Amino acid sequence: MQSSEFHDKETDVTVIGCGPVGLFAVFQCGMLGLRTQVIDVLDAVGGQCIALYPDKPIYDIPSHPVISARGLIEQLCKQIAPFKAGFHLGQVALRLVGAGENWTVVTAKGCEITSRAVFVAAGAGSLQPNRPNLRRLEEFEDKSVFYAVRDIADFSGRSVVIAGGGDSAVDWCIALAELCTVTLVHRRPNFRAAPESERRLRALIEAERVKLVAPAQLQDLEGEGGQLTGVVVSEPNGPRLLSASRLLLCYGLLNDVGPLSGWGLALQVNKVLVDPTTMQTNLPGIYAIGDIASFPGKLKLILNGFAEAAIAAHHAFGRCRPGELLRFEYSTAKGVPTVS
Amino acid sequence: MQSSEFHDKETDVTVIGCGPVGLFAVFQCGMLGLRTQVIDVLDAVGGQCIALYPDKPIYDIPSHPVISARGLIEQLCKQIAPFKAGFHLGQVALRLVGAGENWTVVTAKGCEITSRAVFVAAGAGSLQPNRPNLRRLEEFEDKSVFYAVRDIADFSGRSVVIAGGGDSAVDWCIALAELCTVTLVHRRPNFRAAPESERRLRALIEAERVKLVAPAQLQDLEGEGGQLTGVVVSEPNGPRLLSASRLLLCYGLLNDVGPLSGWGLALQVNKVLVDPTTMQTNLPGIYAIGDIASFPGKLKLILNGFAEAAIAAHHAFGRCRPGELLRFEYSTAKGVPTVS
Repeated sequence: MQSSEFHDKETDVTVIGCGPVGLFAVFQCGMLGLRTQVIDVLDAVGGQCIALYPDKPIYDIPSHPVISARGLIEQLCKQIAPFKAGFHLGQVALRLVGAGENWTVVTAKGCEITSRAVFVAAGAGSLQPNRPNLRRLEEFEDKSVFYAVRDIADFSGRSVVIAGGGDSAVDWCIALAELCTVTLVHRRPNFRAAPESERRLRALIEAERVKLVAPAQLQDLEGEGGQLTGVVVSEPNGPRLLSASRLLLCYGLLNDVGPLSGWGLALQVNKVLVDPTTMQTNLPGIYAIGDIASFPGKLKLILNGFAEAAIAAHHAFGRCRPGELLRFEYSTAKGVPTVS
Repeated sequence: MQSSEFHDKETDVTVIGCGPVGLFAVFQCGMLGLRTQVIDVLDAVGGQCIALYPDKPIYDIPSHPVISARGLIEQLCKQIAPFKAGFHLGQVALRLVGAGENWTVVTAKGCEITSRAVFVAAGAGSLQPNRPNLRRLEEFEDKSVFYAVRDIADFSGRSVVIAGGGDSAVDWCIALAELCTVTLVHRRPNFRAAPESERRLRALIEAERVKLVAPAQLQDLEGEGGQLTGVVVSEPNGPRLLSASRLLLCYGLLNDVGPLSGWGLALQVNKVLVDPTTMQTNLPGIYAIGDIASFPGKLKLILNGFAEAAIAAHHAFGRCRPGELLRFEYSTAKGVPTVS
């Protein structure tokens, strides 16, 4: 999926979140002739399936005895390809503004999308990285302190401190050890990583190609103008300064409904309350589907999110095409509509 | 799927109907450790998908950009294989008898299945063949008058009258012309069949390997002791006797809830009313899922039936395993349980 270049859009349905349920909503809308624009805080489509467990096998997608999370997303991308949805990735949906029958969603990158209906398919929330409590952290973020490796050239040849002890920290140690001087800081001497990855990390530490500082915790950052020069860690014996021009923070992802919480939606424990017969929220034209939706009997399975997307699309049709009759047709009879 | 040989069964969930939704209910129950026995009026699993449109492409199964109805059923059969459900095919579910917390379903072949929960996944109903209004019809049925070819040897070398003008009539003319003397009786000179099939039929008529009697309608049957000797048809000029020892009636399938209508279930226009938060009917422990279920906002899509199967299975767990805690787990975490 290519991110769309245009910033001001008018469409039928704005979909927030492109995990499996958001992607299938694009399909269901497309089958009814509704155009869609999709926003996601992550840089890639697939939501948690891609960000958290791409290689895990899923067994309960109907008529796929087994499919990897990545395979599921690839199939869904093929399925929605005919509908040419616009994608606005790497940007959180910041504000919701109502005007007449329309809603405008404004993203953190200034993209504004106006539509009759908005589907909130934000899963567990906006999946923000866990940020440690460090003085002056904002000053360095996205300049020399990162939560993900977006461009590996940014790290090449640098002194890099990686903080964390899960799969992500361990995997990046292995990948970056080829290109930079890597120091791994972890609060415990053990890791929560795939055994094979941990074995490879131990071998790199043994060969002195990765330096392990553990148990230790981040205490302070040194540098000026956003350019890191060192990381102070606290060890059992006291603080130590590690020279570093890059810090990669791998403390996992935080589930948080994020800016949604200020949109006037009726919420219950970080979930959006909906009427399950329509998937509509307390705001007319705003729907919630998938894991973020809450209603009596809600089952947090991907397959149920798919069904909720279908229900929302059929209801939203009436809002997007007032006066037009929605003739119920099976896909076997009508095929996949072509879009211009 | 092999039909089960044993007639008296005790299980956790009895599933009535094994179209796609009934089959997926077996999977969802299995994932929760619930055993299932399945009843269907048809001789093969797959419901309408196999009986009515096996080769039609379906486009709206999530993460299958396209799959044939037969392919869908094959995949579902693979998916449920680990759970070793029992199948009781070719028999309508006739009676429902409650005793304490249990329900017993009795089939037309005398099979009795007792369980805590029953899932009615009967689709559009029991898919009975359309029966013409002919005197003494019952006398010949299943002896020399048939609605389907179950054993082609029954027809070999016979004089066969085939009645109807749809795909089924045309396809059987083509198939049986090799083996018997075939006369096709249809009320109109045109057919509602695939163009290629119609072309092949026309060629057989041209070559005098199939005799076409049209426009004509069935008027009477001749014969004794269930053994047909002739079929009287009415033509514009009057009646005509066609010599025949077999009559194959291809007048399509009739959707009818069948014996279900006498079970005390709350119905609305041949649908079973359910609480959509649990999929339970007015009778505790009896659930309805898929096309036969009715509730506000019901969408008659296969994918929504899948989600309904999951909801019913999770609710039925509490009934089948009172006191046991259902720990919600993703299939990625627990895999597919093994059953003994």
